Amino acid sequence: MEKTADSKTNGVDVDRLFATIGAIQQTPSLANFTFRARNRWIGGGRNRSTVQTFYGAGQEDASRKGPFVMDNDEPDVLLGADQAANPVENVLHCLAGCLTTSLIYHAAARGITIDAVESRLEGDLDLRGFLGLSADVRNGYEGVRVTFRIKSDASPQQLAELCKVAQERSPVFDIVTNKVPVTVALEK
Amino acid sequence: MEKTADSKTNGVDVDRLFATIGAIQQTPSLANFTFRARNRWIGGGRNRSTVQTFYGAGQEDASRKGPFVMDNDEPDVLLGADQAANPVENVLHCLAGCLTTSLIYHAAARGITIDAVESRLEGDLDLRGFLGLSADVRNGYEGVRVTFRIKSDASPQQLAELCKVAQERSPVFDIVTNKVPVTVALEK
Repeated sequence: MEKTADSKTNGVDVDRLFATIGAIQQTPSLANFTFRARNRWIGGGRNRSTVQTFYGAGQEDASRKGPFVMDNDEPDVLLGADQAANPVENVLHCLAGCLTTSLIYHAAARGITIDAVESRLEGDLDLRGFLGLSADVRNGYEGVRVTFRIKSDASPQQLAELCKVAQERSPVFDIVTNKVPVTVALEK
Repeated sequence: MEKTADSKTNGVDVDRLFATIGAIQQTPSLANFTFRARNRWIGGGRNRSTVQTFYGAGQEDASRKGPFVMDNDEPDVLLGADQAANPVENVLHCLAGCLTTSLIYHAAARGITIDAVESRLEGDLDLRGFLGLSADVRNGYEGVRVTFRIKSDASPQQLAELCKVAQERSPVFDIVTNKVPVTVALEK
């Protein structure tokens, strides 16, 4: 298959995707990535993250010219200045984005053209966890519901299968639905 | 204690924080929140979330005038247009922000003044999970490391205790380190 401008499906360069898969099959260590973020407290519930560098494909990435900047805040009822979505709302953003990208990339790999994807997410959270008011209540989401709408000429069976593959492959879906070991250190 | 402009510690209105705790102790259902996000695929690895409404404190919140808009993309090596941090980088942003806010609010509740908080996060991810190339590799982070630097007149013991409380109370720390049930539906 010749690599042309037409080799993109769903905006994904499929030839390059298969080349990446081939390279990783030959050299599995190319699949090792380390992503990073830095965060600085601004005041109250407000803080700001910057993301720029990462390690992956066997080297420090040098392609990004500047950092991406993302904020967290809290709404008024949670005593914030409401200058940004809050961290648990931002988790829904991550989950929506990762499921969507997983669906789109795996659709591209299968040659399935997608015209549009929209999702709505809801997560239930009992604030008594954060406040330490009940030992029976967890701090994070008790449950999250995701609803997708997909526009495509693919069959309903193919779209249902893509929704399943998205869940089976999405890194953030794994992070949210399974346990990730996190260590927290305090630097002197 | 009279409510004055001075009642803020670390930018948190402590009187209002204790009033919130009192109200929830009397009426636990006030602690039930439902947060929401919507997401729309733009192309390739790029998609955009909007966050505005939520339910909490016994009612639909009406305080937000417009939506917050957040993007996901992928870097070039992951076949994206690199217009935003990617979903797993954004997870580090959420985790940093939530641990910081938990630390700041609980410090305020204890009357501990914090001057500055910075954090650095790293997460290791093996791309073979996402690509479906190895059954032995998980899709999400294999581990995340968080390092805090805190400037405060509080004692080292107090700061270590605050770092511990932040982990014990942070919703996103719970979401990442424990399992959250997520249901995904495909709307016709």
